[in-house]
Amino acid sequence: MSIKVGILGYGNLGRGIECALKQAEDMELAAVFTRRDPKTVTILHSGVPVYHIDDILNHKDEIDLLILCGGSATDLPKQTPEYAEHFTLIDSFDTHANIPAHFDAVDAAAQKGGRVALISCGWDPGMFSLNRLYAEAVLPKGNTYTFWGKGVSQGHSDAIRRVEGVVDGRQYTIPIAEALEAVRSGSAPALTTRQKHLRECFVVAEEGADKERIENEIKTMPNYFADYDTVVHFITLEEMQRDHSGIPHGGFVIRSGKTGRQQENTHVIEYSLKLDSNPEFTASVILAFGRAAVRLWREGGRGCKTVFDIPPAYLSPKSAAQLRKELL
Amino acid sequence: MSIKVGILGYGNLGRGIECALKQAEDMELAAVFTRRDPKTVTILHSGVPVYHIDDILNHKDEIDLLILCGGSATDLPKQTPEYAEHFTLIDSFDTHANIPAHFDAVDAAAQKGGRVALISCGWDPGMFSLNRLYAEAVLPKGNTYTFWGKGVSQGHSDAIRRVEGVVDGRQYTIPIAEALEAVRSGSAPALTTRQKHLRECFVVAEEGADKERIENEIKTMPNYFADYDTVVHFITLEEMQRDHSGIPHGGFVIRSGKTGRQQENTHVIEYSLKLDSNPEFTASVILAFGRAAVRLWREGGRGCKTVFDIPPAYLSPKSAAQLRKELL
Repeated sequence: MSIKVGILGYGNLGRGIECALKQAEDMELAAVFTRRDPKTVTILHSGVPVYHIDDILNHKDEIDLLILCGGSATDLPKQTPEYAEHFTLIDSFDTHANIPAHFDAVDAAAQKGGRVALISCGWDPGMFSLNRLYAEAVLPKGNTYTFWGKGVSQGHSDAIRRVEGVVDGRQYTIPIAEALEAVRSGSAPALTTRQKHLRECFVVAEEGADKERIENEIKTMPNYFADYDTVVHFITLEEMQRDHSGIPHGGFVIRSGKTGRQQENTHVIEYSLKLDSNPEFTASVILAFGRAAVRLWREGGRGCKTVFDIPPAYLSPKSAAQLRKELL
Repeated sequence: MSIKVGILGYGNLGRGIECALKQAEDMELAAVFTRRDPKTVTILHSGVPVYHIDDILNHKDEIDLLILCGGSATDLPKQTPEYAEHFTLIDSFDTHANIPAHFDAVDAAAQKGGRVALISCGWDPGMFSLNRLYAEAVLPKGNTYTFWGKGVSQGHSDAIRRVEGVVDGRQYTIPIAEALEAVRSGSAPALTTRQKHLRECFVVAEEGADKERIENEIKTMPNYFADYDTVVHFITLEEMQRDHSGIPHGGFVIRSGKTGRQQENTHVIEYSLKLDSNPEFTASVILAFGRAAVRLWREGGRGCKTVFDIPPAYLSPKSAAQLRKELL
C-alpha cells in the first residue's frame, strides 16, 4: 500500500523531501501545503496540487504522512501539536533543550487523535542521536564526543548579516583536527568549546565600511563567536555567489570506552557524515523515518515517538526476511 | 527488576560477558554452564555457581537471559534452537549465508516456548548490519562497502597453523588504504577482493622447515589466501608471544549516495570500529541487546529477533525520558 505524503512548507527542506520522494517507490507526493498564495508556488511534481495551509484539514483523508518542513523557532512548536491530532506526521524539531516539552505537547495531541507523531528527525537530532545512544549502551564506561562540520551554520551566517555594514555573510563550523585525533586515540581528553571547533566567516562588506570594526564585532559576539577562535575573510559579492552558494555539512560522533578485568582495553566507535547538501540529506532521513511512522501507526502504534523508538527494520521498504538475507 | 544472566560456554566470549556484566548495574551473573567438569572451571565472580550443561534445564527459573557463547560452526546451530524453547536468549551466530535457516529454526522453538531469542548479535553481524541498514534506508541510491581490520582473523590463523612445518601463525586482515579513500570520496568504485583487503601473516616455522614452501602454500591456499595479496613474515616464538598475543579488530561500513533533482549531490556515511579486544567488544554489544531481549519478552514479545527488530531505546538502562533529554 503506497504511502501518500503531504509536505507542509515549501522551502529548502520541502524541496529536499520532494527530490527524495522520487527515490522512494513505496511513497508518493499527494499535496503541498503553503502559507503563500498557492498559485505562486511551482513544485517539481507536475499534477500534484498545492493548497493553502488554511485548507489542510479538508485534505486529511488524502494524506497518510504529513511532513512538517517549518523552522524550530516558531513554526514547529505550534504546528506539530496542532496537526498531530489529525495526521500521522514527522518533524525535524532541533532545539535540543526544548525537546522534552515539545514531546509532551505532541504526545498529548497524537494520543487524543489516535495518531503517531515522530519528532526531532534528521541528522542531529536524528542519526547522531542514534549513534550516541548505541555507542553509550554498548560501552557504558566511556566518553562521547560530537563534532560538527565542516559545514554552513545558518544561525551563525544570519548573525553575521545582522552586523552593521555587512551585505552578506557565510559561516563555516570546522572541527579542529587535533581535537578529533585526540578523541580518536581513545585518550578521552577534556576539551573546551574553543578546542573543539573553529568558526570561519566569509563577509561581503558595504563599500567604505570599517572592516576592522566589522571583524571585531563578529569575533566578540556573545553566544555565537566569543567562545571560539574565529577567522574572518572579506570577499566580493561575486566570490560569495561563486564559492559559497552550497549548503554542505557533516560531522562526527565518537565514543571511546574501556572493557576488561582492569578496564585495560580501549575501543573507539566513530560515526561520520560528509554531506553536499544539508537539507537534502535531512530530507532523506525524514523520509525513511516517515515510512516507519506510518507502518507503526498501521500496526496500532499511537502517540509521540522519536528515532529511539523505531525498530530499524521499519525504515526500509524491504521485507524483514530480505533484510536478514541481504544486510545482516 | 535486575536481569539474571546465565553464560553458556566459558571461552574468550564468555569471559568477555563476565567482564561486561560488571559495567551493567541492572544485570547480574546468576550461573555459568559448561561442557567441562564444573569443578575445573574458575570464574571471575566469586560465589556464582558453575554447572554442567546437562543440568541447564534444572536452572531454568533462575535465569532471565541465557547468553550462548559457543561457535557458529557446530555449537550454535544445535544449541540455539534447543534452548530457545526454554530461555529468553541471545547468540552471536555469524555464518552470514546460514542466517535465514538459523532464524527459522530458532523462531519455531521460541514461538513454541513463548520466548524471545535474539540471534546474530555482535559487531558483524550486529552493529555493522545496523549501519548497512540505516545507511541504505536513508540513501536508497548508492553503494555500501564493508571493510574489516586491521585485525586478527581466527579462521585464517587456524588455516596457517594447519600448514606442515608451522608451529604457530597469526593472520591480520588489513583494509587497503587506497580503496578506503576511493570509497570515502563518494566515487563508488568497483573493487575486487584483492583491491579491498591485504592479508598479513606472522609465522613461526619448525627448525629446519622449508620456509619457501610454507610461504608458497599459504599464499596459494584456495578460499583463504589465493584471491588476496598476502605477505608472510617468519618470526620467532618469542616474538609471536610478545607482539601478537592480543585480539584486536575493527573495520568500516561506508555508504555513498546521491540526492537532488539531477542526483547532483553526494553524501558519505561512515561507521568505524577500532577495537583492542574483539571478544570483549562483541560481549559488550551482546549484553546491551540481551537487555533489550528481556525487556521485549517482559512486554509480551515472542519469537526470533535480530538487531533490526530492536527499538534502540531498549538497549539502554536509562528511561525513555532521560534518553530524550540527554542523547537526542
